[in-house]
Amino acid sequence: MPLIKSWVPGANDPDTDFPLNNLPCGVFSTDGGDPHCGVAIGDMILDVTAAEEAGVLSAGDEPVFDVPFWNDFMDLGPDAWAAFRADLTAALAENAVKKHALEPFLVPRGTATMHMPFAVSEYTDFYAGRNHAFNVGTMFRGPENALPPNWLHMPIGYNGRASSVVVSGTDLHRPRGQLKSPDHDMPAFLPSRRLDFELEMGAIVGQPSQGMVSVAEAEAMIFGYVLLNDWSARDIQAWEYQPLGPFQSKATATTISPWIVTKAALEPFRTSTPEREKPLLPYLREPGPMLYDIALEAALAPAGKPETVITRTNYREMYYSAPQQLAHHTTSGCPMNVGDLLGSGTISGKNAPERGSMLELSWGGKEPLTLESGETRSFLEDGDRLTLRGHAQGDGYRIGFGEATGAVLPALEDPYAR
Amino acid sequence: MPLIKSWVPGANDPDTDFPLNNLPCGVFSTDGGDPHCGVAIGDMILDVTAAEEAGVLSAGDEPVFDVPFWNDFMDLGPDAWAAFRADLTAALAENAVKKHALEPFLVPRGTATMHMPFAVSEYTDFYAGRNHAFNVGTMFRGPENALPPNWLHMPIGYNGRASSVVVSGTDLHRPRGQLKSPDHDMPAFLPSRRLDFELEMGAIVGQPSQGMVSVAEAEAMIFGYVLLNDWSARDIQAWEYQPLGPFQSKATATTISPWIVTKAALEPFRTSTPEREKPLLPYLREPGPMLYDIALEAALAPAGKPETVITRTNYREMYYSAPQQLAHHTTSGCPMNVGDLLGSGTISGKNAPERGSMLELSWGGKEPLTLESGETRSFLEDGDRLTLRGHAQGDGYRIGFGEATGAVLPALEDPYAR
Repeated sequence: MPLIKSWVPGANDPDTDFPLNNLPCGVFSTDGGDPHCGVAIGDMILDVTAAEEAGVLSAGDEPVFDVPFWNDFMDLGPDAWAAFRADLTAALAENAVKKHALEPFLVPRGTATMHMPFAVSEYTDFYAGRNHAFNVGTMFRGPENALPPNWLHMPIGYNGRASSVVVSGTDLHRPRGQLKSPDHDMPAFLPSRRLDFELEMGAIVGQPSQGMVSVAEAEAMIFGYVLLNDWSARDIQAWEYQPLGPFQSKATATTISPWIVTKAALEPFRTSTPEREKPLLPYLREPGPMLYDIALEAALAPAGKPETVITRTNYREMYYSAPQQLAHHTTSGCPMNVGDLLGSGTISGKNAPERGSMLELSWGGKEPLTLESGETRSFLEDGDRLTLRGHAQGDGYRIGFGEATGAVLPALEDPYAR
Repeated sequence: MPLIKSWVPGANDPDTDFPLNNLPCGVFSTDGGDPHCGVAIGDMILDVTAAEEAGVLSAGDEPVFDVPFWNDFMDLGPDAWAAFRADLTAALAENAVKKHALEPFLVPRGTATMHMPFAVSEYTDFYAGRNHAFNVGTMFRGPENALPPNWLHMPIGYNGRASSVVVSGTDLHRPRGQLKSPDHDMPAFLPSRRLDFELEMGAIVGQPSQGMVSVAEAEAMIFGYVLLNDWSARDIQAWEYQPLGPFQSKATATTISPWIVTKAALEPFRTSTPEREKPLLPYLREPGPMLYDIALEAALAPAGKPETVITRTNYREMYYSAPQQLAHHTTSGCPMNVGDLLGSGTISGKNAPERGSMLELSWGGKEPLTLESGETRSFLEDGDRLTLRGHAQGDGYRIGFGEATGAVLPALEDPYAR
């Protein structure tokens, strides 16, 4: 599919994240006003809340953009998603009749503050990248036992904390927690010394389910994707995670990019999961390609210094797709809801510069990274800004995700230190 | 504190779960009508939604009972909780002037259908019972290594699935999942053969927090308690839980009792956590007694047969209290919200007939239980009904929780079997 030309400024620029082919969904405000639903297009945001209120746009019989999140729209289902996308595409295309009707609802993107694009119902994080699981397993158990015995048979996941999901631009305080060093009998309550990021994609569930769904049905339930940084305190994790998994080590913040890139926009970039090393059970088999070719990178900028791109990888590296994860999630009969967020798991490529976490990039701290500023890093330090970026490259255009960025602030004072 | 006498039928019966001293909060409907908020009293339910609408009762300036859950009321905070309880206690007491005003809003409890008493924001389940952790650890690792090294230093917990929490009376289909037997190379997708219950209490968070809170602050945030059965598929759990903890094995259903027993009602029954085997870090130390003396039991009834009480235990057996769990939950900065539910972890006493799960009662299936019907059980079978009950015993009255009950239905047909 080629670029669809638009009358909106900046939308035909081959380097914009937001050509007419994209039309991602976000929530924004300007000048401290109420948050509105908006669609990014070129250098602008189309204020769909205002356009709906004015009767210029609609997605159904009832208003769905009178709330500052896309959940009500997602609730309408795939037919409504497709119809609304078709309407928007027609109205924003070059020579569209509707240009004059929509023009008053365009807001310069540079003036907007972004908010969470949807209300997160529940958040599940997976561990479904083969290279990441192999790297982490190798560090802890050696290469022969790197993958747990279940890993090639199911997408391993755990429930995360929805309340900790924040939109790009939200800074986070370094967490405190119980740290236990091998040479001490007792743990201490201290700021984490091994704060890390995890480069992931998040899939957003746009339709509910009761009971078990197939991979094909799961695919139809997914509304779109975001970039996701699962901030992780490795030292808190190491001490707490036996036997019930990560808990406070992953609960400080999970940053997502502000624009939901819809499944429809990613359609031209579909690609398959890799060949299976062990045959999957029938319920996990994919009826077609369910990954996407999305170039991803993470950049680290120390306070006041320029950034260094520390890793480049691709979403096609996943061993399990989001529809496979979602199908597995329902095997127990677990009900899924509109607004559920599924983290892919850390996406690492095969080679060292393609690793999606500091833990892997510095090999557990043994091989610190050197940044362009000359500083070195094993884990994140106070003042560091970590930014994820991603895009699918089309012929003369790109489907971009914008950024998922956040800076590490010093730990808050210990209320128990006296 | 003695029984507070009430004019409501059945409320002064020493065996009722719901004397005036209790006043637990639920959501009910009659004759297929809309669910209303209600307070149980003796043989009746006071319809507080209708009473608020009629202007006979109020909890604040704005209506909070016009929704079928107690979250809006909880949101008002501890002063409002205390004031509303005082109003209700006065109005329902013997010789109350308000008797004639409230009488029209009493509904016979036997005619009511119970619904979820609150909207669950997020659900966290702990593993904070010493005897349960020791029993399970002994079965898997021997008595010397039974407790994980972190166990005596922090309440171990994991995030569960809020969407799977159901009210007492909801039956559940036996889940399917990946089962892997040691003598097979590959897992199979089958109905669980080791379906279990877990006898727990649930604490309901009634006030939000951002950032870290102390145990005392956490205590003030808790609105009340319910009985909680964390249905668990042990064979699915055994295969899936490494390295990120339980996931689908705990996502089929979690049953809670329909009445939230408030912290105020439990006040006379406070008791302390046991002596510490290792000193706790300051952030986990309790400023006073934070457990309650609540007698608990679980009964198992095969389909069409009488029930057998299979265990009797007490909430005071916990090693960590709910306020300690909640304080630990916030150490990372994790935001907590009104409606968060914290499962205590399985509550087992020291002796064999006090164990809170089939896994422990049958010692992993090696010592099947014999029921009064003559049947034996290692785990739950199709048709079995499992019922939790609990109450605190006062002088001439009891503060009861009602029941948390559910029956096991056969697994649904496998959509992938051909």
